[in-house]
Amino acid sequence: MHHFAIRVRYGDTDQMGMAYYGNYMRWFEIGRAEMIRSLGSSYRAIEESGIQLPVVEARCRYLQPARYDDLIAVETGVLSVGRASVRFGYRIVNEASGELLAHGITEHCFLGAGGRPVRAPETLAALLERAPRAPDAGAFGRAGG
Amino acid sequence: MHHFAIRVRYGDTDQMGMAYYGNYMRWFEIGRAEMIRSLGSSYRAIEESGIQLPVVEARCRYLQPARYDDLIAVETGVLSVGRASVRFGYRIVNEASGELLAHGITEHCFLGAGGRPVRAPETLAALLERAPRAPDAGAFGRAGG
Amino acid sequence: MHHFAIRVRYGDTDQMGMAYYGNYMRWFEIGRAEMIRSLGSSYRAIEESGIQLPVVEARCRYLQPARYDDLIAVETGVLSVGRASVRFGYRIVNEASGELLAHGITEHCFLGAGGRPVRAPETLAALLERAPRAPDAGAFGRAGG
Amino acid sequence: MHHFAIRVRYGDTDQMGMAYYGNYMRWFEIGRAEMIRSLGSSYRAIEESGIQLPVVEARCRYLQPARYDDLIAVETGVLSVGRASVRFGYRIVNEASGELLAHGITEHCFLGAGGRPVRAPETLAALLERAPRAPDAGAFGRAGG
Repeated sequence: MHHFAIRVRYGDTDQMGMAYYGNYMRWFEIGRAEMIRSLGSSYRAIEESGIQLPVVEARCRYLQPARYDDLIAVETGVLSVGRASVRFGYRIVNEASGELLAHGITEHCFLGAGGRPVRAPETLAALLERAPRAPDAGAFGRAGG
Repeated sequence: MHHFAIRVRYGDTDQMGMAYYGNYMRWFEIGRAEMIRSLGSSYRAIEESGIQLPVVEARCRYLQPARYDDLIAVETGVLSVGRASVRFGYRIVNEASGELLAHGITEHCFLGAGGRPVRAPETLAALLERAPRAPDAGAFGRAGG
Repeated sequence: MHHFAIRVRYGDTDQMGMAYYGNYMRWFEIGRAEMIRSLGSSYRAIEESGIQLPVVEARCRYLQPARYDDLIAVETGVLSVGRASVRFGYRIVNEASGELLAHGITEHCFLGAGGRPVRAPETLAALLERAPRAPDAGAFGRAGG
Repeated sequence: MHHFAIRVRYGDTDQMGMAYYGNYMRWFEIGRAEMIRSLGSSYRAIEESGIQLPVVEARCRYLQPARYDDLIAVETGVLSVGRASVRFGYRIVNEASGELLAHGITEHCFLGAGGRPVRAPETLAALLERAPRAPDAGAFGRAGG
């Protein structure tokens, strides 16, 4: 899976002293954007080509807290590609200890002009084809998720 | 389910012109806090009594976008209560049209002094007992999510 | 000044146990949106008429912390209206105690089609004319700010 | 001034297609945290030593928008150090073009045990002494600000 380091910021924490659970969605966004960049494209370029990938489902399983100033990594891969959608898998790990802090998935549909569902254009399909793979999606529903 | 109205703010939107997907986690938080308040307690009072309810899992299925200045409602209920955890279910609807925009769940464990998992104290268990119920959790995995 | 109540949410707090300082900008946004609504219009309607009011300056003086689950109020008024800009003034108070927690200002320019600076159209100028006034802007630079 | 690169994320944008104005406060936080780290310490270490530096004032002047996926830099320096407070100055620039997008300041007080205002301990005072300097604070009120 693609690996990208992120620092937990003060604004990410809450009064429990750990990163607020909603922030993981942002970290997933960073993970998939950087994975796409690592393949020589960018999510911005995809949007500029007329395709949007809105999130239709998101799941996260929180195992251990991320704390202020921790360096974490988001690991991102493709779980599955369908006709009109794609699923990414994510793992959030502590960079120093390697400990798994959270894991999750997002599912996206492909929208074309006027916000209509479309099949992925060939360049996008090819890009997703050569993306790193995430472990089987079933894992989310089984162990701990 | 308990019903609470929220206005979509400019800072909630993204350049797709709709509410960013991570914000729904915040709306779920507002929903459960207000549901607990409607029962005569508050999440603050629960924390002050020494119990924390960190999120261990969150899921959201996004059906239709929420847009700037829309008045939406978060509907919240208890899905299930276990020995050491509770699951809440949520629906996000457009207040004007009644249209279902998203639905999801969060699961929380009970942590006591020193961050150790504990059973829910009697007052908390009683509160969750008389909370409104959310439709069966299985629904998340079936139709539309 | 126009008065609008807001609840401090868990996601607003940081590990200091108080609302993160960046969130006040969001509260200012809520204050000016609700002030405009109270005058029978809405910021959405203004944007739909082809005028945007991006922020060109923001200032906030933080006096006392806002804490989780506190009910606060944002009080909003117009400080001054220029040819091509408007300044709003804000006070954040604790609803229960009336204590002043913070005060600040935002300055906005008027942008028309293609993002060009324009004068306020008559309907917007008239709306700002009948808006509540905020105390003199000089106050920001003087007492406590 | 200390220089640190940040990527504008989708969640940072709003429906105007630019970064939401409140996010600059977060970028300022990142700037000062990384400036402190570059001096061999960290804001976390300062807090663990018993000193907090809450923000008592923040100002930002927005000149040009930051857009999705732009690589920006936050440049941070110390403006002035008082007995019980410190002021940092910031510039947000576009990494590719060098264009100045925004500039601002934050002022912080020093809080010790029990949240009481204190003088900066010697190690903190020495650290701020050897920090990079930001251009004169007066600049905020003059050119473009």
